[in-house]
Amino acid sequence: MTAHSAIGAPPLVAHGGRLDAARRLFPDAPQPWIDLSTGVNPRAYPLPPLDDEVFTRLPDDDAFAALDGAARKAYGAPAGADVVPGGGAQAFIQMLPRVFPAKRVAILGFTYAEHAACWAAMGAQVEMVETIDALANADVGVIVAPNNPDGRVVGPQDILSAATQMSQRGLLIVDESFMDFTPEASVAGFAQNESLVVLRSFGKAYGLPGLRLGFALCSRARGAKLRAALGPWAVSGPALAIGARALADQAWRIGAARACAGHAARLDALLTQAGFHIMGGTTLFRLAANPQAPRWFAHLAARGILTRGFADRPDWLRFGLPPNEAAWARLAAALESVDGD
Amino acid sequence: MTAHSAIGAPPLVAHGGRLDAARRLFPDAPQPWIDLSTGVNPRAYPLPPLDDEVFTRLPDDDAFAALDGAARKAYGAPAGADVVPGGGAQAFIQMLPRVFPAKRVAILGFTYAEHAACWAAMGAQVEMVETIDALANADVGVIVAPNNPDGRVVGPQDILSAATQMSQRGLLIVDESFMDFTPEASVAGFAQNESLVVLRSFGKAYGLPGLRLGFALCSRARGAKLRAALGPWAVSGPALAIGARALADQAWRIGAARACAGHAARLDALLTQAGFHIMGGTTLFRLAANPQAPRWFAHLAARGILTRGFADRPDWLRFGLPPNEAAWARLAAALESVDGD
Repeated sequence: MTAHSAIGAPPLVAHGGRLDAARRLFPDAPQPWIDLSTGVNPRAYPLPPLDDEVFTRLPDDDAFAALDGAARKAYGAPAGADVVPGGGAQAFIQMLPRVFPAKRVAILGFTYAEHAACWAAMGAQVEMVETIDALANADVGVIVAPNNPDGRVVGPQDILSAATQMSQRGLLIVDESFMDFTPEASVAGFAQNESLVVLRSFGKAYGLPGLRLGFALCSRARGAKLRAALGPWAVSGPALAIGARALADQAWRIGAARACAGHAARLDALLTQAGFHIMGGTTLFRLAANPQAPRWFAHLAARGILTRGFADRPDWLRFGLPPNEAAWARLAAALESVDGD
Repeated sequence: MTAHSAIGAPPLVAHGGRLDAARRLFPDAPQPWIDLSTGVNPRAYPLPPLDDEVFTRLPDDDAFAALDGAARKAYGAPAGADVVPGGGAQAFIQMLPRVFPAKRVAILGFTYAEHAACWAAMGAQVEMVETIDALANADVGVIVAPNNPDGRVVGPQDILSAATQMSQRGLLIVDESFMDFTPEASVAGFAQNESLVVLRSFGKAYGLPGLRLGFALCSRARGAKLRAALGPWAVSGPALAIGARALADQAWRIGAARACAGHAARLDALLTQAGFHIMGGTTLFRLAANPQAPRWFAHLAARGILTRGFADRPDWLRFGLPPNEAAWARLAAALESVDGD
């Protein structure tokens, strides 16, 4: 297998986190694999003990109310907004084109591919645009903020002004899946605006993507439509219990933000030293460019380190944060030279 | 509050399992509440210890493959069928009208209200019919088998012949949410049929509804559409891990079926002695009629025992299985007389 075929292999570019595919493609890599292919915090919120009832009973209104209270406070949602919980931000990305169908969709690119894919699957005409002003010509605009993979930040005022410019019945979707550690840049506080839907992910910053928990913050009218589509019990008992507790824990969030910022700076230094150019990212992942990126991808994978490549941008690699000192040491050793240099 | 207003209160008739609402309506009831309002097995599958990775990693293909293998075998799905996992049978009830839209829907009634509600919400003209033959005139037919709440069984041959009679592009939805303990009556073995979608619930028979896990069994073509609508990671890590293990445990399922049958017979005897007429049900719940049903509902609730009433059928109550001997004793004592008798 060549480096290009490895990085271009569909299982490894479709999404991060495909360790199972990596194991099959690189069966001789040393164990354990270090998964740097996602933007998930490797230092997860400590799992609390769970009552059996979390599993053995249908989630009830009280459990949803507790999650709602914690999420509202954590995200700074106004009282006039609905905070709709669902099975991950992805669940809402899937659902928005069905619940709020539109013909012309503009997406501020380059960004997370699922927005375009889900709108196109529902027959929308999807255009990737390069400026926020170009969103206003469409029925639906999409901004990922901060952006995945490059971390591009669009200021809240610019986002709100774009929402105002959308046609009267238009909708601006702001995917804030990576916003937890930079809450000052969030537009969640304006989510009651009829032209806005703000998506939040729980799993990434809290390191618990297996729980499947995310939110759509929007007007009460739009929220009612999303809730009707989701139906009752759209979130599991474990997600309700852990999510309510973690989102209420501001001290943990502040500490995690600080820790991730430190790890991100350390990663930048390591990658720069290895000849990568840091393009950006968030404090949960770094985007780095290198003309030899496909070779680096294969070199790292052969050493049991999975990064994230991009089929359309072969000179880019995205690196998540190493989970512990052993992983830092393996990454540093692997970055000392690429094969053949 | 009168007995009638209690039973008619929307929080207690919309769905079972609303202990939070019951606590507010009957604040003086003895603790702990005994929840007989659902059809959930009160003796749950023993929760295995869960690896942290179930929470800290995105569910990967291997986890989905393990669940798929276990579910196929447990349900007897043919190789030509797709077994699509999702966040509970309800998630599919919500999704089917969006993915397979239809104008005329016929539902074999009286049954679980969510089918009619979800089709009507998408603009379908919904007719409740009394015979299976009447389904064939519609674009979509719905059969709940065994039926909730009365346990009515429609034979597999009759269901398959109804599927054949549906118009060429028609669809017959068979909701087998309560089929686990009577697998011989299932049509899951015919799920590759283009005219069939068979729904299965994990949480009810296995006593773990908080996990949110269910399946749609259907042709590969229909499965691809459902999977596209669900998107990646539609099932949580805990649901994948516990579901795969429990569905592979045939010995537990056989033992649970036997135990529930015994408890159902014991419940019938108790209710009959109290003057109820047993209408039917499954071995996970019993439907009982009594002219004094609304008074019985309030009488039992005042004693901390929640049953399920039906707004349209005021003489019916549905009873789930008591979870332990203490609950049996409280139920027996409470059934000795209704207030005022």
